[in-house]
Amino acid sequence: MAKELSGAGLRGQSAGETALCTVGKTGSGLTYRGYDIEVLAEKACFEEVAYLLLHGKLPNRTELSQYRNKLMSLRELPQALKAALELIPKDAHPMDVMRTGCSFLGNLETETDFSQQQDTADRLLATLPAIILYWYRFSHDGVRIDTSNPSVPSLAGHFLAMLHSDTPNPLHEQVMNASLILYAEHEFNASTFTARVCASTLSDMHSCITGGIGSLRGPLHGGANEAAMDMIEPWKTPDEAEAALLDKLANKEKVMGFGHAIYRERDPRNDIIKQWSKRLSEEVGDTHLYAVSERCEAVMWREKKLFCNADFFHASAYRFMGIPTLLFTPIFVCARVTGWAAHVMEQRANNRIIRPSADYTGPEKAQWVELDDRP
Amino acid sequence: MAKELSGAGLRGQSAGETALCTVGKTGSGLTYRGYDIEVLAEKACFEEVAYLLLHGKLPNRTELSQYRNKLMSLRELPQALKAALELIPKDAHPMDVMRTGCSFLGNLETETDFSQQQDTADRLLATLPAIILYWYRFSHDGVRIDTSNPSVPSLAGHFLAMLHSDTPNPLHEQVMNASLILYAEHEFNASTFTARVCASTLSDMHSCITGGIGSLRGPLHGGANEAAMDMIEPWKTPDEAEAALLDKLANKEKVMGFGHAIYRERDPRNDIIKQWSKRLSEEVGDTHLYAVSERCEAVMWREKKLFCNADFFHASAYRFMGIPTLLFTPIFVCARVTGWAAHVMEQRANNRIIRPSADYTGPEKAQWVELDDRP
Repeated sequence: MAKELSGAGLRGQSAGETALCTVGKTGSGLTYRGYDIEVLAEKACFEEVAYLLLHGKLPNRTELSQYRNKLMSLRELPQALKAALELIPKDAHPMDVMRTGCSFLGNLETETDFSQQQDTADRLLATLPAIILYWYRFSHDGVRIDTSNPSVPSLAGHFLAMLHSDTPNPLHEQVMNASLILYAEHEFNASTFTARVCASTLSDMHSCITGGIGSLRGPLHGGANEAAMDMIEPWKTPDEAEAALLDKLANKEKVMGFGHAIYRERDPRNDIIKQWSKRLSEEVGDTHLYAVSERCEAVMWREKKLFCNADFFHASAYRFMGIPTLLFTPIFVCARVTGWAAHVMEQRANNRIIRPSADYTGPEKAQWVELDDRP
Repeated sequence: MAKELSGAGLRGQSAGETALCTVGKTGSGLTYRGYDIEVLAEKACFEEVAYLLLHGKLPNRTELSQYRNKLMSLRELPQALKAALELIPKDAHPMDVMRTGCSFLGNLETETDFSQQQDTADRLLATLPAIILYWYRFSHDGVRIDTSNPSVPSLAGHFLAMLHSDTPNPLHEQVMNASLILYAEHEFNASTFTARVCASTLSDMHSCITGGIGSLRGPLHGGANEAAMDMIEPWKTPDEAEAALLDKLANKEKVMGFGHAIYRERDPRNDIIKQWSKRLSEEVGDTHLYAVSERCEAVMWREKKLFCNADFFHASAYRFMGIPTLLFTPIFVCARVTGWAAHVMEQRANNRIIRPSADYTGPEKAQWVELDDRP
């Protein structure tokens, strides 16, 4: 068995300062620039939260209106990027597409000076939904979608409209809006820390966000909502779910969507998305998926004292909105790009290159052996 | 002025274990798996060092021959990747091209299981020179180069042959070989640490290497050899160089290519590349560039007690081989991909997700204000 690393994963070690977010300060709280996540998810639109994270304050009505208009005007993808996305096969990993689309855009619209950082962040915020859905619709449906969609002002609605080629259902738009807010920011998680390490070399915004996407792709980070969906999808009744889940626990299989590295009591995002999942389940006439999800929550708490994290009820909520599982983590990217970009700007404002040390465990001194004398 | 960060840049804090490399253990030493860099640069070929880093030991003659053949067989780029590279404009940042090419390849040849990690690393090692030079030659010369080049077995020679469309000069091939060895690995520097943070989420190899490229792009990390070249290029005599350099120092301008965050006495890589730069200067009949470089070294030591790091004499060495400045950092990528991939595999073998904490400096509690009541 692997031995314990000293300082493994830097757990509990401070790697810098942030004014953006607190996670689990009271065991269960989450705040963005001091605002409770519950309040933001109930009262704000995603563009307000993006503005709060990227510009440091809640916008007034004029600023919000200007910001939404700006984001709308930035949705169109350059022709060369569309052509590159068309070269990516249908069976590619959607997070590879996101990572590549973001990186490719950096070739065409390079951030050459940090004075461009706000505009670059806004452009990425506006284009990432278009990047994933342009590729998805082209590779899966053979359709070249128009990504400008001037009739749909919100980013949440824009995502749904591009996916379904239809005016978004208002309830779905509302849930997507809340979902994007819940996923927008989470302090020094691994993908955000990746973006900050990259930023600390004074690299450009596209490199930092590309790096963040690559880290979010890992199954220990993003992707828990996809794994939860894959788990619950085959279960047709709560009793079937309970039996299968107990089997999994007995076999010590990993169950995704429960517990959290930092929250100790509960994940404050769960109550919010769970409510929305219930609403959607009623709206679409769901016969079992919400009930299955609730039973999983009860079983995991009863058996393991593990609570649902933000990802678990996202699975059913997204499914009720007709979102294919493989787009779940890309939606996380569309939200978290706000947090990543805000952290990049914060790192740049008070930078020292992030360069830790390592404990050396290799050979003390190795003697060169000529090629023909090697075993 | 920004206040000092606590634990700024994680300097001196251990972020894990490595058996790959020691940097500055004796103030000036550099070892790869216990072998001194001086011995490797003198006696090994780059493929031997790549094998050492990626496979854990020096290859015997049969293993080395098989490894070189394997790398040669992996040089060809997929057609879709070539088409994507042709979409990138001539004025793009070459590191953006490297980052995008690596990311794009991940869509076509996804690492779906860690049992593929050695092959994925070898494939990237074989293709990264082709990625940058296919784009460079197409966008700058309008030529679609053949990247297979079966007549040039070494990676060093392959790079030069693709650049010049000619059989490589043997001395140049030898210097390029040494240069790739010098840049192959350097412990937990920022780009390698980026790759390890990404790996710690159990993400795929292409994501990790793409992240590393993005961090190396930053001017505080890679790019010092380019900056050194830009500085010395206009100086036509040592006296002119000395006067200009003293001016820079008087104006407190940053001079790239000198000093090091970890080495205290000297950078062991400097002596090696400096010797090669001298050899090349004699071979090409250089009238001033080497002399200018030597004078810069003397002035920086006399005035600031700063020694040349690995980057400074790389600038003149690359120039003598006819390599355009904008390809300097991409060569660094072609070398360092070995260290990055080796670190990714090491991280995976004994993993805990890298998730540090942060010191919160934001507002304690913010009260929601309705949109129309905001200032």
